[in-house]
Amino acid sequence: MTPVITAYALSPDRGRGLARDMRVRWALEEAGLRYDVRPLSFDERHREARLAGNPFGQIPTYEEGDLVLFESGAIILHIAQQQTSQEHGLLPTEPKARARATAWMFAALNTVEPVILERQTARLLEGGESWAQQRLALIDERIRKRLAELARHLGDAEWLDGGFSAGDLLVVSVLRWLTASGSTLVDEQPNLAAYVARGEARPAFQRAFAAQLALYKASASPEGK
Amino acid sequence: MTPVITAYALSPDRGRGLARDMRVRWALEEAGLRYDVRPLSFDERHREARLAGNPFGQIPTYEEGDLVLFESGAIILHIAQQQTSQEHGLLPTEPKARARATAWMFAALNTVEPVILERQTARLLEGGESWAQQRLALIDERIRKRLAELARHLGDAEWLDGGFSAGDLLVVSVLRWLTASGSTLVDEQPNLAAYVARGEARPAFQRAFAAQLALYKASASPEGK
Repeated sequence: MTPVITAYALSPDRGRGLARDMRVRWALEEAGLRYDVRPLSFDERHREARLAGNPFGQIPTYEEGDLVLFESGAIILHIAQQQTSQEHGLLPTEPKARARATAWMFAALNTVEPVILERQTARLLEGGESWAQQRLALIDERIRKRLAELARHLGDAEWLDGGFSAGDLLVVSVLRWLTASGSTLVDEQPNLAAYVARGEARPAFQRAFAAQLALYKASASPEGK
Repeated sequence: MTPVITAYALSPDRGRGLARDMRVRWALEEAGLRYDVRPLSFDERHREARLAGNPFGQIPTYEEGDLVLFESGAIILHIAQQQTSQEHGLLPTEPKARARATAWMFAALNTVEPVILERQTARLLEGGESWAQQRLALIDERIRKRLAELARHLGDAEWLDGGFSAGDLLVVSVLRWLTASGSTLVDEQPNLAAYVARGEARPAFQRAFAAQLALYKASASPEGK
């Protein structure tokens, strides 16, 4: 059964692959699974996403028969847990290594992403406030601290804990908030910058990125659906 | 094998059960598992937490033999997945219901908590800045919107998706940032306030809360260890 995910037809990131459908597309490509996409109109996206099963009106949602899921982290964990072959594995099969890879999924979403998203909020929702510039400097210091801890853990390794996992997929995705929006904070840690580049070089990432960009371009063109 | 978790000896929440060891204690109590606690000195807590296995220097960490985990969300998922009996279940055994409960775990940590933690940051780290009050009003509006969506989903139900799950455990824990710090934002949604109270009334919550409070009191008293 081919799963269906929702995505913005006209993502506000203009095809830079920062909307959260990108993470799920990437995971599906790593897993070697086909999927369909139901684009949501931008004006009606919150209502449509709620109707599709996300109480918070966000994309993506994931439908697989009568299973409806929301939260990209949960969707990726679900996809990873369906995989039985190491070849397309997003999580190690050995139970302890699997638990540790899952810890990196949560670290990406609950420890690394929130401080980075404060920066997005400061720029996008509070960019016109009198305090915006002064506050950005405070936020960047908090991000620097967290990235230094991450870089120290990564060291010279290729991935965070053994082979590439859904934990790396999410940490790379979260760091892309910075690298894809012109911030040089990640570049201050050369091993982290190389880590993000390794993630983006994966064929599964490339396929997912191309697919979300194609949807944006088709939606943005006058003849686009 | 009895697992060991780390916790702050002198939690800055002064025993209100807001530090993240409380979530793991609650899960362990729901699962009917014994556990030991290794308190970290407050001055050395970041270094000690890193030594205990958390690259970001946070509590809790979780040790079970040679498995070392960090991130409270991942620790709780690990505990939940060990349970084979529905009696002490933190996740349903039916696969689709289990995936949906997991979605609520991620929703708690990646959709509900970040906007609430911005409020904590604004009060604790930026409380002395000139913009603090004006910004708090903006943040509270964002929290209101999210809580209204959560309240609409919950409706008259007892828990978010069928029986009590690790998803409820984390959503209640996240809402406690507000209720336990004097904010009335949750009270504006009476069904959410009742939902938090139902969570706190569970015997497992009560045992976990008492244990963390006892550690704080012992550490704070002059004779404390």
